[in-house]
Amino acid sequence: MTHSLPTFVPPARLLLGPGPSDVAPSVLRALAAPTLGHLDPKLFEALDQIRAMLRTLFGTRNAATLAVSGTGTSGMEAVLCNLIEPGDAVLVPVHGYFGARVAEIAARCGADVVRVDGTWGRVSDVAAARVACQGRRIRVVAVVHAETSTGVREDLEAWRDLSRELGALFVADTVTSLGCIPIDADAHGLDAAWSCTQKGLSCTPGLAPVTFSERALERIRARSRKVQSFYFDLGLLLDFWGGAHAYHHTISSNLLYALHEAARLVLAEGLEQRFAQHSAASRACVAGLEALGLSLLVEEAQRLPQLLAVRIPSDVPDVSVRTRLLQDFGIEIGGGLGPFKGQLWRVGLMGHGATRRNVTTLLAALGACLRAEGFQPRGDGVAAAERVFSGAERGAASVAR
Amino acid sequence: MTHSLPTFVPPARLLLGPGPSDVAPSVLRALAAPTLGHLDPKLFEALDQIRAMLRTLFGTRNAATLAVSGTGTSGMEAVLCNLIEPGDAVLVPVHGYFGARVAEIAARCGADVVRVDGTWGRVSDVAAARVACQGRRIRVVAVVHAETSTGVREDLEAWRDLSRELGALFVADTVTSLGCIPIDADAHGLDAAWSCTQKGLSCTPGLAPVTFSERALERIRARSRKVQSFYFDLGLLLDFWGGAHAYHHTISSNLLYALHEAARLVLAEGLEQRFAQHSAASRACVAGLEALGLSLLVEEAQRLPQLLAVRIPSDVPDVSVRTRLLQDFGIEIGGGLGPFKGQLWRVGLMGHGATRRNVTTLLAALGACLRAEGFQPRGDGVAAAERVFSGAERGAASVAR
Repeated sequence: MTHSLPTFVPPARLLLGPGPSDVAPSVLRALAAPTLGHLDPKLFEALDQIRAMLRTLFGTRNAATLAVSGTGTSGMEAVLCNLIEPGDAVLVPVHGYFGARVAEIAARCGADVVRVDGTWGRVSDVAAARVACQGRRIRVVAVVHAETSTGVREDLEAWRDLSRELGALFVADTVTSLGCIPIDADAHGLDAAWSCTQKGLSCTPGLAPVTFSERALERIRARSRKVQSFYFDLGLLLDFWGGAHAYHHTISSNLLYALHEAARLVLAEGLEQRFAQHSAASRACVAGLEALGLSLLVEEAQRLPQLLAVRIPSDVPDVSVRTRLLQDFGIEIGGGLGPFKGQLWRVGLMGHGATRRNVTTLLAALGACLRAEGFQPRGDGVAAAERVFSGAERGAASVAR
Repeated sequence: MTHSLPTFVPPARLLLGPGPSDVAPSVLRALAAPTLGHLDPKLFEALDQIRAMLRTLFGTRNAATLAVSGTGTSGMEAVLCNLIEPGDAVLVPVHGYFGARVAEIAARCGADVVRVDGTWGRVSDVAAARVACQGRRIRVVAVVHAETSTGVREDLEAWRDLSRELGALFVADTVTSLGCIPIDADAHGLDAAWSCTQKGLSCTPGLAPVTFSERALERIRARSRKVQSFYFDLGLLLDFWGGAHAYHHTISSNLLYALHEAARLVLAEGLEQRFAQHSAASRACVAGLEALGLSLLVEEAQRLPQLLAVRIPSDVPDVSVRTRLLQDFGIEIGGGLGPFKGQLWRVGLMGHGATRRNVTTLLAALGACLRAEGFQPRGDGVAAAERVFSGAERGAASVAR
């Protein structure tokens, strides 16, 4: 069987789920350039440029900014395993699937996790967390900036202030925020952050941008034992990414080409413009979803523009609608995670994918799928979105590409 | 500065170092196909085919065969952290840089490492290892099949027999052997093995094929504590790769396309044919190197065909020659690692790169670089290689592509 396989040819999809997002053609072209060795001096030029671009994206001057060779979850593990020593108390507010993942990974690093569970779909309660930490020497506060399971945007400033009160390092998951909404790691007092390539940057998955402050590096230098992971050991990663370029692992030059091109596209367009585009696409999409008779999980003030959690009406079958979208229209959206399985759809309008055309396409196709399942949309989703775009376009003209 | 960068365009290289090896054009094309979501049902078809092909490549029927989302070193860490619990005695024979890396990672997993140091450039001494293990309850024996730092081929059968004597699991690093020389994981009694994509498979780096026997899975199921890494937790990886296809991380569909195509090419050509090609290219290259007046580190019986460690003559400057090869000819070869830094060149003839044309190109260019540095080659390297190819071609005609 294995000896006669044809080349795998993926079907054409429009990726409007929680990630990956659609990848720009020039990023795919960059990916396919001939492979370079991981110690090639020309590759080091690309590394330096990538680091500089990641600093701009993260809003930081941190020297220790680079990409881990793995997906976003590897970035999460890399940050946590470098900063946590066994027995360290780590505060983790949990209001979604990825907060729970942070707590799980911190525990595997030996942390004494102070987990403060909130309500999925709402921001965490900083005051409750403060109470939970009373009398504890908290070493790290780890917060999910953009909770991918619910579409909630956490308030980094409130957590920064609590982290300072506690004298703890402050770290954040920015997997679903980088490139979509403002992050200013230095102003937000972040001592470390991790992200991914396949959402706001519209790059293929496989690398995890991370950044560490000088304070975080001091903590790592003062460790009493080695980081439990060799693969994610920041000191070794910095020896490769930095001046010495000492061999650590065979980094994928192809993934670096793609990240270089994806970051370049974002910065060439401008971060402010990107944020405006996400905001405009999101407002139009929300108007359209509501016109169809659907409601959003998260209230507007706490909602991420780039990831919309849509409540599935009780008489509509989750999987049938998503299967129709995928098979009849080639459109991927996400389902719910954890307690929201079967309860939510997750619509991503991220990076390159946050366009007027995609919003229109999705609303038209979703309306058709709902009707096919016997759910009568309340109104015309496309028309409602168009009304927003027509008004919004004065402020964000390039959304219409 | 970051706002006006052009697209990064890698220079043209011929990769004849210890990896990555040159990637076939169809693999690069596969890499650039549009990204699929990690939960797309069509991607699961590719996953199933990749698993089947990896089983053939590893020579195993192990159900637990898949690719970790990271480089070869991530595969090493994934195997070790799943199989080792703190305090476990782990035997690691070390006769090169990667044996030392196995020992280092095992120690970070909490192992009580029984490290048996041999001579770099020679196979390890099984009898000495047996003595070192006396009275110890060894849980895992971890051996480097193909030591990338020296080009030594370890005898898996001898280590299998010792592992059985000790009642230990037997695991091997096959990073530089998979696809180049025979591996029969089941016959060799391997309980786990890890590899990479960018050497014998001639794929871009970024994934690490791994396989685990049923005995290894039993050991993992019987663990008293969780695996220290969430990212590398085999149970979670199997839940994604296996029937449930439960979300664990956003695997890179693009890297999977490339691995699928690379494995497909190897199996379409046939493993036996691939092994013959590596052997023929290597014998010709050795003849050419010796004709130039260079000598090999490893004696023939222990030498890997796919990775030749060449002693640098004392009056020849390592870096100057490699820089000339890279800058004037666009050819990458490797330098020495650890105690062999400045002492060795490492020539890789791997996968797609193990060709008559590449051997000829390298010998011609290396001869020119040596002359430019004032070293007079003893004879004609290309002619010597051609004599071997002419004789060898009767047995391995397709080397001449």
